[in-house]
Amino acid sequence: MTKIEIFDSTLRDGAQGEGISFSVGDKLSIVQTLDAFGVDYIEAGNPGSNPKDIEFFHRVKEMTLQSARLCAFGSTCRKGTAPQDDPNVLSLLSADTSSVVIFGKTWDLHVTQVLGTTLTENLRLVADTVRYCKAQGREVIFDAEHFFDGYHNNPAYAMQVLAAAHDAGADALCLCDTNGGTLPDDIRLAVVKVCATFPGTRVGIHCHNDAGCGVASSLLAVGAGAVQVQGTFTGIGERCGNADLSTIIPALKLKMGLDCKGDLPNLRHTANKLSELCNLPLFSGKPYVGTSAFAHKGGMHIDGVSKVSRSFEHVPPEAVGNERRFLMSEVSGRTTVLAKLATLAPEMNKDSPEVAEMVKTLKEMEHEGFQFEAADASFELMVLRTLKRYTPHFTLSMYRISGEYPFPDGEQSASAMLSVQVDGRQETTAAMGNGPVHALDTALRKALSVFYPELNKVRLTDYKVRVLTGRAATASTVRVLIESSDGETSWTTVGVSTDIIAASWQALTDSIEYILHKKEVPVPCL
Amino acid sequence: MTKIEIFDSTLRDGAQGEGISFSVGDKLSIVQTLDAFGVDYIEAGNPGSNPKDIEFFHRVKEMTLQSARLCAFGSTCRKGTAPQDDPNVLSLLSADTSSVVIFGKTWDLHVTQVLGTTLTENLRLVADTVRYCKAQGREVIFDAEHFFDGYHNNPAYAMQVLAAAHDAGADALCLCDTNGGTLPDDIRLAVVKVCATFPGTRVGIHCHNDAGCGVASSLLAVGAGAVQVQGTFTGIGERCGNADLSTIIPALKLKMGLDCKGDLPNLRHTANKLSELCNLPLFSGKPYVGTSAFAHKGGMHIDGVSKVSRSFEHVPPEAVGNERRFLMSEVSGRTTVLAKLATLAPEMNKDSPEVAEMVKTLKEMEHEGFQFEAADASFELMVLRTLKRYTPHFTLSMYRISGEYPFPDGEQSASAMLSVQVDGRQETTAAMGNGPVHALDTALRKALSVFYPELNKVRLTDYKVRVLTGRAATASTVRVLIESSDGETSWTTVGVSTDIIAASWQALTDSIEYILHKKEVPVPCL
Repeated sequence: MTKIEIFDSTLRDGAQGEGISFSVGDKLSIVQTLDAFGVDYIEAGNPGSNPKDIEFFHRVKEMTLQSARLCAFGSTCRKGTAPQDDPNVLSLLSADTSSVVIFGKTWDLHVTQVLGTTLTENLRLVADTVRYCKAQGREVIFDAEHFFDGYHNNPAYAMQVLAAAHDAGADALCLCDTNGGTLPDDIRLAVVKVCATFPGTRVGIHCHNDAGCGVASSLLAVGAGAVQVQGTFTGIGERCGNADLSTIIPALKLKMGLDCKGDLPNLRHTANKLSELCNLPLFSGKPYVGTSAFAHKGGMHIDGVSKVSRSFEHVPPEAVGNERRFLMSEVSGRTTVLAKLATLAPEMNKDSPEVAEMVKTLKEMEHEGFQFEAADASFELMVLRTLKRYTPHFTLSMYRISGEYPFPDGEQSASAMLSVQVDGRQETTAAMGNGPVHALDTALRKALSVFYPELNKVRLTDYKVRVLTGRAATASTVRVLIESSDGETSWTTVGVSTDIIAASWQALTDSIEYILHKKEVPVPCL
Repeated sequence: MTKIEIFDSTLRDGAQGEGISFSVGDKLSIVQTLDAFGVDYIEAGNPGSNPKDIEFFHRVKEMTLQSARLCAFGSTCRKGTAPQDDPNVLSLLSADTSSVVIFGKTWDLHVTQVLGTTLTENLRLVADTVRYCKAQGREVIFDAEHFFDGYHNNPAYAMQVLAAAHDAGADALCLCDTNGGTLPDDIRLAVVKVCATFPGTRVGIHCHNDAGCGVASSLLAVGAGAVQVQGTFTGIGERCGNADLSTIIPALKLKMGLDCKGDLPNLRHTANKLSELCNLPLFSGKPYVGTSAFAHKGGMHIDGVSKVSRSFEHVPPEAVGNERRFLMSEVSGRTTVLAKLATLAPEMNKDSPEVAEMVKTLKEMEHEGFQFEAADASFELMVLRTLKRYTPHFTLSMYRISGEYPFPDGEQSASAMLSVQVDGRQETTAAMGNGPVHALDTALRKALSVFYPELNKVRLTDYKVRVLTGRAATASTVRVLIESSDGETSWTTVGVSTDIIAASWQALTDSIEYILHKKEVPVPCL
């Protein structure tokens, strides 16, 4: 069976998307998430382009990847220069990745009018750069920029550029629809031609979504002989985005019967996690992974699915880690809750009154804006509270935060005072912070560590805020997600309120209650 | 030139989308909007299905449509009944539309396991219903439900169903990929076969987007001989939605050179208006019509577009009523700044020292976490400050916010006090709010409207928060984006700090400074 290579460019082409801006920490988490799902290549920009990328390439070397190879990305050397004298080519190689991607012009219009050089000189740039990188022992993937527009405008020249890269030793030729406007049938026909011209060479496809056909064109290219698909996992990228790998991978595996990397039952989780890291909501109607992807609303559809699931489902939702939902119907929820309860309270079944109560509570909380998908610890606490298997470890008597301008003390712009009770004993304390939530978090742990010294080991490792109802502007509801760690394990909690302080307080409380409960009653993680 | 019919199902299939619920007024506005843009058919459900639809069909008769025909939609008669005795068929005809859509089963699995009848009886249902509606003088479009799954499972039977509808007088045969899972090449091959089997018959295509290929499959079907495309204008619909007409129509006209209805320069406006009517935001990366569809972020792309627009644009943005935008970002540089300055300070060129200073300031601010691509108003203020063409309209002497638990007053969990100076006059005031930012915003506008009553018209319309450096958890830097409106225009501003209150304060200040400055010195919008 042909093996198709999956090449993710979230960190490079995805970073070109409007509103996308990755910290070094985000980038490292993205590498880890993609590697855990399983892809062949992770393209990660050029270490020379800015200080953040230099730091990233330095730190990523410390990571051990299970399935993916990291690629640095850069252009051919500049006109009139040799690759060994070109600072961009040298910085590309300095990233020290075993694979590099070199992109070069294949559209004659770009060569003469954008690059401002001759067609012959451009062939030299491609050949020299590929040859130089090969001589440094790297795998070289040649990205033929604007290949399809070039092939349309001047097919002979576009093929000459591919031949220049191929003859210089390129390991793979990737055909890019950089402007994203080529229609699927034109992509298919050009790929057939390239595969016939360079038999035995790995041909890749790199589509954008400007004509709304990025996924389809990629699949047709594979049908026509391409063996590498470039895209971004959630489809982010400049303008209308890149071909969406979360849609392509299940089609390759489930529909085309092809072999490629990717832990499909983890598809939805991976797409959700990457969306969180990009701080973008995952579109509910996104194929395979969206919350609506297997949501049935029409009465006839619900009836059909209940009789034969494939009557209205093109793939089984569980194959991609998703789940069936019946909208406006009591039927939904219960199966999900039961699946989650399986380890926590295995004695429960569909007809247990506690399950009905839990489904009701869950629906009410979700209506308020809670989301438990990324907050397992809060979900577990909600279950324990409903089952009355849990006593809180502390109660809040009061808190008061204040923020001031001018700042009272350098960066410390806020202070918090609070009072908590543990077993009838009151502890009142205060702390400053560089924001009100920071001050509150510091004060809370200060107060509680008097009673629970083990909390000194607990650290908050991530903090996310999402505004839920934009229309109400600063009066909107916000959802806060907090990730905590005690050095051994990590857990996530959620809070929702119109007041960011109150929402953060809920998530902070859950975080601490969760770990204190777990130390007493080691329960299996949901 | 072949004429392709555009068939919109926003009111019928679109209404099946999660979260979609149309009032009668919405439906009438949607009909008007689609008719003004220009489509051939507007499918509008079945008058018998609920009272809202009865009222709609009654009121829509009073409208005069310029380009579109209204269609009622319903199933074949039920097993064991005759169409003239079936209440659904009768209510369908009672809508009194000149065209009707009849859907029937073509997948043998559905006939036997969902409908629970025989393959022969299903053929009779299709033939009798089509024949009866034709006898009532209607144009009949037969929707072959699940055609592609049926054709895959039992091709002979799927073709027999089409033949039954055709022989009973159906005016058009529309092939539906109801589950949305068929891949584009399979769609293409089946359409070729149907067109060859029923020469001279109008063949339609109705795709869903479950495999992310709804648009591409529709276009390939047209290439294979289909002359009617069914979809929804903005792609809404059950699960992953229907084929998106706002993406299909420009491809038919601009890329395939086909004739079809649709006022392309009005495309973006129509998509925006329909999204408003559906109460859904239009996805920024939506092909042709999204705000990011022609937004360039990469420095090389901006340079290329500035030289030759088609070098990085697959169609001219104005052809679809959209516009080019240059985004600010760390990867871009002097060219981006210059392109943005073109209207604001046209006398500047690449070598102006102010441009160099601005690029430097921009890079420093971006390093701190500012992002101007979605905050044009803050960018404009930054430019004006650098050019020293701007005097602040107020100065802050102090603010103090406080948040408490238990909440002092119902939902009002926070209060803010502040003092500002305008022309040497001090104004001190305070306000409560359902969060600290809400309280601060309220207090600020209360204080300033003493001096600038025009601020009473200004409203904050959106508020976004992004935590930038997750690793530092609650001590992280946050970026706040605020969108404001005065009822005529809207603008976005940004603030960055470790303190969410301080970050919000910066964005609030910019928002108010921007509109006050603009009222004095009307500058061209960037």
